[in-house]
Amino acid sequence: MLVLMKQGATRAQIDAVLGKINELGMTPHEIPGATRTAIGITGNKSALEPGPFQMMDGVADAVPVSKPYKLVSREVHAETSVITFPNGASIGGEQLAVFAGPCAVESRDQVLRTAEVVAKSGARFLRGGAFKPRTSPYAFQGLKEDGLKILAEARQQTGLLVCTEVKDTETMPLVEEYSDILQIGARNMQNFSLLEAAGKAKKPVMLKRGLSATIQEWLLAAEYIMSQGNYRVMLCERGIRTFETATRNTLDLNAVPVLRHLTHLPVVVDPSHAVGIVWAVPSMARAAVAAGADGLMVEVHPDPSKALSDGPQSLTFDAFAKLMVDVKKIAPIVGKTA
Amino acid sequence: MLVLMKQGATRAQIDAVLGKINELGMTPHEIPGATRTAIGITGNKSALEPGPFQMMDGVADAVPVSKPYKLVSREVHAETSVITFPNGASIGGEQLAVFAGPCAVESRDQVLRTAEVVAKSGARFLRGGAFKPRTSPYAFQGLKEDGLKILAEARQQTGLLVCTEVKDTETMPLVEEYSDILQIGARNMQNFSLLEAAGKAKKPVMLKRGLSATIQEWLLAAEYIMSQGNYRVMLCERGIRTFETATRNTLDLNAVPVLRHLTHLPVVVDPSHAVGIVWAVPSMARAAVAAGADGLMVEVHPDPSKALSDGPQSLTFDAFAKLMVDVKKIAPIVGKTA
Amino acid sequence: MLVLMKQGATRAQIDAVLGKINELGMTPHEIPGATRTAIGITGNKSALEPGPFQMMDGVADAVPVSKPYKLVSREVHAETSVITFPNGASIGGEQLAVFAGPCAVESRDQVLRTAEVVAKSGARFLRGGAFKPRTSPYAFQGLKEDGLKILAEARQQTGLLVCTEVKDTETMPLVEEYSDILQIGARNMQNFSLLEAAGKAKKPVMLKRGLSATIQEWLLAAEYIMSQGNYRVMLCERGIRTFETATRNTLDLNAVPVLRHLTHLPVVVDPSHAVGIVWAVPSMARAAVAAGADGLMVEVHPDPSKALSDGPQSLTFDAFAKLMVDVKKIAPIVGKTA
Amino acid sequence: MLVLMKQGATRAQIDAVLGKINELGMTPHEIPGATRTAIGITGNKSALEPGPFQMMDGVADAVPVSKPYKLVSREVHAETSVITFPNGASIGGEQLAVFAGPCAVESRDQVLRTAEVVAKSGARFLRGGAFKPRTSPYAFQGLKEDGLKILAEARQQTGLLVCTEVKDTETMPLVEEYSDILQIGARNMQNFSLLEAAGKAKKPVMLKRGLSATIQEWLLAAEYIMSQGNYRVMLCERGIRTFETATRNTLDLNAVPVLRHLTHLPVVVDPSHAVGIVWAVPSMARAAVAAGADGLMVEVHPDPSKALSDGPQSLTFDAFAKLMVDVKKIAPIVGKTA
Repeated sequence: MLVLMKQGATRAQIDAVLGKINELGMTPHEIPGATRTAIGITGNKSALEPGPFQMMDGVADAVPVSKPYKLVSREVHAETSVITFPNGASIGGEQLAVFAGPCAVESRDQVLRTAEVVAKSGARFLRGGAFKPRTSPYAFQGLKEDGLKILAEARQQTGLLVCTEVKDTETMPLVEEYSDILQIGARNMQNFSLLEAAGKAKKPVMLKRGLSATIQEWLLAAEYIMSQGNYRVMLCERGIRTFETATRNTLDLNAVPVLRHLTHLPVVVDPSHAVGIVWAVPSMARAAVAAGADGLMVEVHPDPSKALSDGPQSLTFDAFAKLMVDVKKIAPIVGKTA
Repeated sequence: MLVLMKQGATRAQIDAVLGKINELGMTPHEIPGATRTAIGITGNKSALEPGPFQMMDGVADAVPVSKPYKLVSREVHAETSVITFPNGASIGGEQLAVFAGPCAVESRDQVLRTAEVVAKSGARFLRGGAFKPRTSPYAFQGLKEDGLKILAEARQQTGLLVCTEVKDTETMPLVEEYSDILQIGARNMQNFSLLEAAGKAKKPVMLKRGLSATIQEWLLAAEYIMSQGNYRVMLCERGIRTFETATRNTLDLNAVPVLRHLTHLPVVVDPSHAVGIVWAVPSMARAAVAAGADGLMVEVHPDPSKALSDGPQSLTFDAFAKLMVDVKKIAPIVGKTA
Repeated sequence: MLVLMKQGATRAQIDAVLGKINELGMTPHEIPGATRTAIGITGNKSALEPGPFQMMDGVADAVPVSKPYKLVSREVHAETSVITFPNGASIGGEQLAVFAGPCAVESRDQVLRTAEVVAKSGARFLRGGAFKPRTSPYAFQGLKEDGLKILAEARQQTGLLVCTEVKDTETMPLVEEYSDILQIGARNMQNFSLLEAAGKAKKPVMLKRGLSATIQEWLLAAEYIMSQGNYRVMLCERGIRTFETATRNTLDLNAVPVLRHLTHLPVVVDPSHAVGIVWAVPSMARAAVAAGADGLMVEVHPDPSKALSDGPQSLTFDAFAKLMVDVKKIAPIVGKTA
Repeated sequence: MLVLMKQGATRAQIDAVLGKINELGMTPHEIPGATRTAIGITGNKSALEPGPFQMMDGVADAVPVSKPYKLVSREVHAETSVITFPNGASIGGEQLAVFAGPCAVESRDQVLRTAEVVAKSGARFLRGGAFKPRTSPYAFQGLKEDGLKILAEARQQTGLLVCTEVKDTETMPLVEEYSDILQIGARNMQNFSLLEAAGKAKKPVMLKRGLSATIQEWLLAAEYIMSQGNYRVMLCERGIRTFETATRNTLDLNAVPVLRHLTHLPVVVDPSHAVGIVWAVPSMARAAVAAGADGLMVEVHPDPSKALSDGPQSLTFDAFAKLMVDVKKIAPIVGKTA
């Protein structure tokens, strides 16, 4: 159920609706929009009657939501949500959000040099893994807290915002202390305890798509986060598993228009992990922007051949600079600036 | 094995190499390039020694080919092949080739009206199915020869070149008579008898990717055609089968840079069949161009809601016109004109 | 629409129904059952009214068929169809039908030696490819007519029935002359022209599942054959394409109970092609029988290490003999004899 | 690296090898076998030299392990591992281990009635979810600790051993207190923090295969658990995600022989979750046993139509009893008793 307030509904009228929902033992979710406020209701055991809400002052309408997810649905919030940051950067609005940096934080020098190049290109977000979930228990697992400190230092020097992965509930408070955005990785997309913890965090969350997650499952995973009260969620397409072995995964750009249709959450695309081969990354990055993505996440490394993790897919500084030139030309064609 | 002739090798020198290959009981394939000629060899039972060829006059080098396919390989032909037509249209060169039209030819009026709009937009190719392979024996199977005649009439009125599907060897002579390009559909991608027949045809062939064909299998299917002597082959990505059901198929744009890397054949993208929902087509069409495709194939219909086949994925005339505006802006960023 | 005749309906009553359907411009398909006859109707342009048929003499009921396929549906024919042969062998009944032999016919000696072992084991069907559709144009394509002659000689010597692949409409008359069963391969499952030709043939057809065909598409492909009048069709599961690379394909045994539920056609399982590794074949063959398959198709070769095609998946004579011992124990548990 | 001790090596000789490995800063894993002990080494930064170990007293050989996983590899432990319980039940040996029970614990009555039927059938393990990870945040999430208590009561009444899912590290101590086996669900197969916690637990672990996990990824996930010191791990195939929609997932029985080849860990098959339709479960359960699985996990419910979770795939008491009759006949054919 979604209660749509009238344009110009007063604070008191909104509060009355929130109060009534609480009284009924359910949870209200206030969702401010550009022109009016909507209030999502979760926690109901069965279908709700719209009547009692429709009669309340300031209420324009109360409508059932036709999808299995509610808070993430575009039915609930007609415009794409914009996640804003104090320094003026944003995701989901007119700015094309570019996230760049190494796959893994390996050293202070590596990160600071990369961050400088990223900042100079006009990108606003630095990516880099401090906690690395790895398929093998014997592979490099990241610098952990030391890595977080390096990222924070890079932020201080460049003004870039930091986006790094949170791997489990135990280390979430630590990551939240250092990072501007909490990234949840593909393998954890249905780690529901982690999603709930992210839903209680104060930082925005970037939810990567699971390797074989349908778009509906992905949206329901985002719903887990939002249902706990954290409404600043963005989705990141990073390749799905198919029969094709020529690329590491199959970047599913079809998800961009489909998500745009179904949800108000901003959509970011990570072509680096998806294709896994550096010479294919610029093509897919350009394609992602042309498809209408709100953001782009790419791996950049000072010396890809020496990377401890995912070197073969990392762009050199030069290749990244060249990509940004193209991206800045394509963005305006789809109504973005970069 | 690939014999690379020196720049400026004479006709007689080339003929001597061709003759030697024939003498040895194998098949030579002369592949003219912008700066020099290469000669592919097929039909050898075991690995060939390069020595005897390297010693011949006019030969620069003789090198083994490292892939299971030969004639389609970029190792054999460093530049992308350009398929040209008498009216100046081309595929694989600087022109972005746009193929547009209805899924199925339904009536003279439908086709002529659509063709006019397509031609006015600047596109050079008319698509439309006269023989329709359908999953169910009880579905509309196309107007057959009557459909071919309608397409030919549209060509005469508009100057558009016709691309239509050939479904079996029996009807290939008929389709070849009317069509400028022979399209082989996804379900026939490994119909080897049909591929061989197309390899003996005089018209260029557009080979659609099988629904679950790997890129290597697709290239080997193209090799079947080329090994019979028809070197004018282009590849068309049209979506692969994955677990995702939000779109009909998953358009695999990753194939664009991967094919560019592996083969010299031109690459066309058909987003309409792949996504199967009209509101997602323009995004994916823009993405295909930005990814660097040589061509675009889209479905356009005067009244999609009344289409006998695949209506839900066909663009209206207005939507197609709007898409062409965007496409013309993106093409130059990737070195194309449209 | 399906017209169900009463038990004991006379020939004249049945003929009257057939005549009426013909009169209406549609095609009747008489489907004799153990206790009563059903008549399927195809070729109708829109939904039919049951009334006029229900009123005819000898008619028990006229019911719409709820699936997109008709003639293959279990709604139309409640018992599993049994395909019988003059020598007493059958497929779909109590006998477990075992097809064994080499992937490709390579020599007279290879086939005759194998056939002898197959016959001695109690199996009734000899498999072996004379026309081999191969992914690469440069791979061994089979002995063609010479191969068919060798298979026919093996039949004469052993009494085994021959099942071999038909690759295109051009060679179908030849294959039909020599083979007892026409096998249509996975890559041709949606070669509709070939299906229609098989529908006009006089021999039973074994339709292999396409590499990424859904069960519904597979049943519709069988419907193509039956709609042309050949009702002796069996289905062969041979592995589907998935993300897993540990086996060549993923044998989908789930198809066995699902097909049993949806269709009356007999179901055969080919574990050899599916898994592609010989040490996994006996496990999957046993599993197929336990799942309730009507038949089993396995590759056997006198010397797998020297096979021209698919050696790594062929059983030795000893391994095949051992498998048959297990199969004969499992069959009775699921109501079969072997 | 794997150090193989001689048959009859003394405790002191084994301890000397363990000590040397510790001294070198690596982790030894003692793996007792039927005839001799092996010692796996993990934590080495680069390839080890076998020489120094080969010279030690009581050492038969020191050999490098050729797979990316070590402790789970059959190279390290030639016989299938047997997980034993104080009451005589075992998994991986001659006994076919049958796990049966409801998908979710719903009430005391439901569980006790089901447990009684399960015990009477001869099965030794009771399954049932108290913590239910659900795709939607709004779906029934399980009775949690109350559910665990009900399971423990059922154990007391019937002697069945309890296997229930552990969903996160927070609730692991609680689940470990009540359950005999810790089940890790498909969605958590690459939740590495959870795997590490399970590796430190005292109870055996059943690791379900991720929905799109390759067999190699699955084995590496098991390696995470074993590398922490818990060697009592079993694997459970429960269906993979493919393009086919006729069944909920595709039960990949091919995994049974492949795992048998690659690993010494016992293999259990869960057909209920995989196929998701009750009429297909008995076929696939029989097939799993015939394929050589060490165990079977099936859902049984007193009244499937009223189940809160996964009712459509649960067997009735009668259907379960009938299945057990068949299973007991098939087991001896593959060297098991049930």
